[in-house]
Amino acid sequence: MERAENLKFEVTALRCLFMSLSSLAPDPSLRKVAVVGASGYSGEELCALLDRHPQAELTAIFSRQHQGKTLGEVMPRFAGQKIASLAFLNADPINVAACDAGSVFLALPHGVAAEYAAALLHAGKVVIDLSADFRLRDADLYADYYGGVHPAPELLAQAIYAIPELSREAIQRSCLIACAGCYPTSIQLPLIPLFRAGLLDPAGIVVSSASGLSGAGRKAAVDYLYTECHENIRAYGVPRHRHLSEMEQQLSLAADSKVVMTFIPHLAPMSRGMHTTIVATPSFGKTAADLMAALHAAYADEPFIRLREHPPETKHVTGTNFCDIALFDEPRTGRVVILSVIDNLMKGAAGQAVQCFNLRAGLPETEGLL
Amino acid sequence: MERAENLKFEVTALRCLFMSLSSLAPDPSLRKVAVVGASGYSGEELCALLDRHPQAELTAIFSRQHQGKTLGEVMPRFAGQKIASLAFLNADPINVAACDAGSVFLALPHGVAAEYAAALLHAGKVVIDLSADFRLRDADLYADYYGGVHPAPELLAQAIYAIPELSREAIQRSCLIACAGCYPTSIQLPLIPLFRAGLLDPAGIVVSSASGLSGAGRKAAVDYLYTECHENIRAYGVPRHRHLSEMEQQLSLAADSKVVMTFIPHLAPMSRGMHTTIVATPSFGKTAADLMAALHAAYADEPFIRLREHPPETKHVTGTNFCDIALFDEPRTGRVVILSVIDNLMKGAAGQAVQCFNLRAGLPETEGLL
Amino acid sequence: MERAENLKFEVTALRCLFMSLSSLAPDPSLRKVAVVGASGYSGEELCALLDRHPQAELTAIFSRQHQGKTLGEVMPRFAGQKIASLAFLNADPINVAACDAGSVFLALPHGVAAEYAAALLHAGKVVIDLSADFRLRDADLYADYYGGVHPAPELLAQAIYAIPELSREAIQRSCLIACAGCYPTSIQLPLIPLFRAGLLDPAGIVVSSASGLSGAGRKAAVDYLYTECHENIRAYGVPRHRHLSEMEQQLSLAADSKVVMTFIPHLAPMSRGMHTTIVATPSFGKTAADLMAALHAAYADEPFIRLREHPPETKHVTGTNFCDIALFDEPRTGRVVILSVIDNLMKGAAGQAVQCFNLRAGLPETEGLL
Amino acid sequence: MERAENLKFEVTALRCLFMSLSSLAPDPSLRKVAVVGASGYSGEELCALLDRHPQAELTAIFSRQHQGKTLGEVMPRFAGQKIASLAFLNADPINVAACDAGSVFLALPHGVAAEYAAALLHAGKVVIDLSADFRLRDADLYADYYGGVHPAPELLAQAIYAIPELSREAIQRSCLIACAGCYPTSIQLPLIPLFRAGLLDPAGIVVSSASGLSGAGRKAAVDYLYTECHENIRAYGVPRHRHLSEMEQQLSLAADSKVVMTFIPHLAPMSRGMHTTIVATPSFGKTAADLMAALHAAYADEPFIRLREHPPETKHVTGTNFCDIALFDEPRTGRVVILSVIDNLMKGAAGQAVQCFNLRAGLPETEGLL
Repeated sequence: MERAENLKFEVTALRCLFMSLSSLAPDPSLRKVAVVGASGYSGEELCALLDRHPQAELTAIFSRQHQGKTLGEVMPRFAGQKIASLAFLNADPINVAACDAGSVFLALPHGVAAEYAAALLHAGKVVIDLSADFRLRDADLYADYYGGVHPAPELLAQAIYAIPELSREAIQRSCLIACAGCYPTSIQLPLIPLFRAGLLDPAGIVVSSASGLSGAGRKAAVDYLYTECHENIRAYGVPRHRHLSEMEQQLSLAADSKVVMTFIPHLAPMSRGMHTTIVATPSFGKTAADLMAALHAAYADEPFIRLREHPPETKHVTGTNFCDIALFDEPRTGRVVILSVIDNLMKGAAGQAVQCFNLRAGLPETEGLL
Repeated sequence: MERAENLKFEVTALRCLFMSLSSLAPDPSLRKVAVVGASGYSGEELCALLDRHPQAELTAIFSRQHQGKTLGEVMPRFAGQKIASLAFLNADPINVAACDAGSVFLALPHGVAAEYAAALLHAGKVVIDLSADFRLRDADLYADYYGGVHPAPELLAQAIYAIPELSREAIQRSCLIACAGCYPTSIQLPLIPLFRAGLLDPAGIVVSSASGLSGAGRKAAVDYLYTECHENIRAYGVPRHRHLSEMEQQLSLAADSKVVMTFIPHLAPMSRGMHTTIVATPSFGKTAADLMAALHAAYADEPFIRLREHPPETKHVTGTNFCDIALFDEPRTGRVVILSVIDNLMKGAAGQAVQCFNLRAGLPETEGLL
Repeated sequence: MERAENLKFEVTALRCLFMSLSSLAPDPSLRKVAVVGASGYSGEELCALLDRHPQAELTAIFSRQHQGKTLGEVMPRFAGQKIASLAFLNADPINVAACDAGSVFLALPHGVAAEYAAALLHAGKVVIDLSADFRLRDADLYADYYGGVHPAPELLAQAIYAIPELSREAIQRSCLIACAGCYPTSIQLPLIPLFRAGLLDPAGIVVSSASGLSGAGRKAAVDYLYTECHENIRAYGVPRHRHLSEMEQQLSLAADSKVVMTFIPHLAPMSRGMHTTIVATPSFGKTAADLMAALHAAYADEPFIRLREHPPETKHVTGTNFCDIALFDEPRTGRVVILSVIDNLMKGAAGQAVQCFNLRAGLPETEGLL
Repeated sequence: MERAENLKFEVTALRCLFMSLSSLAPDPSLRKVAVVGASGYSGEELCALLDRHPQAELTAIFSRQHQGKTLGEVMPRFAGQKIASLAFLNADPINVAACDAGSVFLALPHGVAAEYAAALLHAGKVVIDLSADFRLRDADLYADYYGGVHPAPELLAQAIYAIPELSREAIQRSCLIACAGCYPTSIQLPLIPLFRAGLLDPAGIVVSSASGLSGAGRKAAVDYLYTECHENIRAYGVPRHRHLSEMEQQLSLAADSKVVMTFIPHLAPMSRGMHTTIVATPSFGKTAADLMAALHAAYADEPFIRLREHPPETKHVTGTNFCDIALFDEPRTGRVVILSVIDNLMKGAAGQAVQCFNLRAGLPETEGLL
């Protein structure tokens, strides 16, 4: 039984390797795309982006809840646009795997996405997963942070943790692209280049982030009612939010030593937007100028990273795939303060997924995103 | 069977008449109060008001959902205040009827409140009902607008439709006080004195109102999520909102002729507050000045009505029991524009209920409200 | 003196006529565009739209306040996009008239726009004006509603009141395009086809609208501070808002009889979006079905009008150039209720201006807008 | 000259000492109060609190801007309440000093308050200052953080830095009560007892706070317009906000060693409320349980401090004088996370000022605040 599983895994991996090699001449079929879970906020944003995308063709959308209805019926904002008449199809994994899209976006809750991945990979699809299911390399760590046994541990090794600015080449070759979470994107974009360059004390990271309410998803719950959230800020997931697992994993890889960080997320009374405030300690002998230079070296030519001199505002990036970053020296304490902002549904979810798709499909990285 | 019902009804009515007569010397037991359904927004507001009320004693709160927990546990805002340790009791009607409060507030959905009324009246309680169950005189009209058979039609005749400024004396004598709805309060306060004085064309009323989201209640539903409601305005209940039934009933009584009106409610992106815009046509030969004079005559000495010269703002009445009203002449059209604002949870619900309670318990009408 | 003025006016008109005739083969120079007043909310939105527009070339932006700075400096959201480096130029009318754009958008306060129009027309530009300066045919009416003498009355006769769905051909031939106001757009789009078809009682129109705060402009004033506007709704401009002048003018033209209407605008706590609630009385013998049919006849093929069965929500049109309209019969009163929503900065300002530009420049009407 | 100054200072101090001694039998004249700067958000809140206060008598309000108008005219929310007819008086310091109030609240910008203090102290008033002018002991530090020379350095020595829970007795004896700032209140309430008990590493404090927009004051500025602030979060005052000066002063006193901290304030899209997230490192050998025990020891009996087990929400304290605090262990990092929330206009400004007033006037500390 176990041998059969291993065999299955190897076949999948080989198939993916073959696809990635052959995609050196990018495979046009990858531009046909499908979205599973299109009725959540990330899925809705994906549909909007893919509809406007000049080179992607959105051929199928899947939803358990809305099967049979059109996108225009379920989401009136899409009426009158070309994708409005697209109907939600039966979201059974076998049915999804049979669609003619070459790239499939999974905008599903954690635990559910993994149910689809194996079938899709066997069908030769490229999977772009927005859930947490394939972000961790270690199934035990997943169990520890997300609860329960990982549904498809045999696939973890072939998944690529994906923030394009930080793992571009791997994304171009992967068939299982695990897009980073929203908080981790806003935090790792500034930190990874600094850890890679050995400029930060691995024990000194303290992060406070605030997210708009769309981050909580489109699910009926008293806690997320307008009247509960309006005129209100609250921290949550203290002291051990799930996203810590992927951040400590990736930052440790970048630092080449164990990074343990403090991270406190908050819900703020807005729909979209994520603001991250990082306090960090430079490595011995390093200065804020060294850090700034490293950020410039990493990001000067990145189309979606804007290094700022003033504190960035979430409003500056609303509806865009930008991540704005500013770094301030704090000589009083010997620390630095790093601020970053993203749109949690764009660079934090759907925009980043499309950016990964562009890379994987051999398209210009900014296609449909600027 | 029917005779038994009639007998029961007569006993109840007599008991109530006796109570009201004896309350000429106000019955001190009425100041002991209970709240059923204390975990909704109106119930929460009632608890806050009654806690601060110098002469009311909140002795019991009832909730099906939270039985056994304390108010402080369920609503952290109350922690550290004297009522925090009050525990939610079993909300079975028989249990509620057995409590030692003389006045019982029902902050329950329509249809549910009526289940309690008969038991409470038989137990000699004064019932102050915030639901729609006893606002209509006609059980058929109730069925038409609310669906289903009225649960306690035999009690309708003894219920008093209650807006204190418009039916003060009846409230002082009643044991079944049916507080007006939020929209109807904001609309009838300006219109009833004008209809009573014969100053308005009964066919000319057009009303557009906007309510904050607390009006939709504390119930888990995607439609009322922060992300759905924020940065959004929508009309609903078009063209026949339930509150039309009580408004047309009461306005027709005031006009002594059939009033049929247009009423369009909207949900606006705020927690509290209700703004009403009324367009009306004066009766033949009447002027805006006549109308203004009638409002002044009716309300000059009312503690909770403020006649304004400028458009009132919902923020001016947030957290208060005031209704601010302004009237503008529109010579271009021969119409008048009347604007009114209330806090939907105060003058539109809990505040008005406490005002009714004060009247009924022989207390100063503004007690605990200014 | 007066003869000289008249002569000037005739030359301008002739020049415009000549241009419009020659533009039957559309003049490619019209695709070079400039924006005056780019630092307000409408101007900012225009820049964003023109930046993404596939066939327009934004060649110059003008601002008194920001001359010398780049768009990216003044509005950080534009950083990293291709127009970020565009610098604000000296906004002196002579300087603007000397730019090489064929089409000039004026996103200026009323009274200021008119200062530019004559110079721009003499320089052979097509003027697309978002202000109120050229919407009224009668300079006295302007003085009555806006105060002060009209700055350029000689140009009024050649200006076209512009809502593309209602005056498409005139826009294609005009050199002075006076875009309709935001409220008037949301109100006239549903009403004009009904008045044209003789389906409405001219005396029966009552309108209540609510606008987001961006409609108040980007100007420092305590009344528009966050803390003043948040959790607040207020009516203003009662009973005679300036936009009444253009609406009564245009509706009377459509009805071929004098229309006098009631219109009450409100400010609602949101940034963008406009919701309009119209109550109207069908002409004698006409039914809601007749009205619905007329709307379908007028708008079935319009790309930016969506006829709805359910109450439309402002959120459905945020960031788009759509106007969503729904009509409801109200047999109780013999009236109809018509709801419409637009994004006040899009279909209510910048989007509509670009739609006019597309028409005038011979481009597909939806270019850059879908 | 200098001697004369010194003499003046000594007389003032003696007078104050005498007053405080005599107030052991509390001086009833202190209950007559005046507010200078009543038209800002803190001043408005003060008026509301003092109006409802059972034992304070608000006898005079002063404003440069609104002199001659009544409170009801300037702030329509107060109409119909007993203080509505109070007129704003000439705010000249000599005029204020001549009023018959024994206690004067200064709700003025920094730099302006100091202009009043000397005159008021000489007139024998108790000054309760909400500005920053008397919070720092060192005039040079003031110059460094606030710019410019301190306007009344000779008074600094007699001023008491006031957070009642932390300096109750000194407040009871002082004539110049310098209320702590909003951020410092939310930060020092949890930290001071821990530093006093020697439980925290003085070098390990990192704080991220978010404030509602009322904290920015009622002043016309584009940066605080609704449309700019809505759906937006931004940090500001990075890396050296003015409130650092008072916090490092007071924390160092509590720790009896130099505390240097990181503090990043943010503006969040809400009117009221302040959320503070503190990350701290226990002293060597100390545990989170030790810290929690110290907080309980300090605050178990405090009426306005609520120790929480779950993350507190700003909404829980809106409109109240509570500070809710929760502490979480973070064994992964060896740090603790402390969360606190206040209403920035209440415990962060007007509420705390009234609490100080109660103490100073010999009234129950919670009078008018619960």
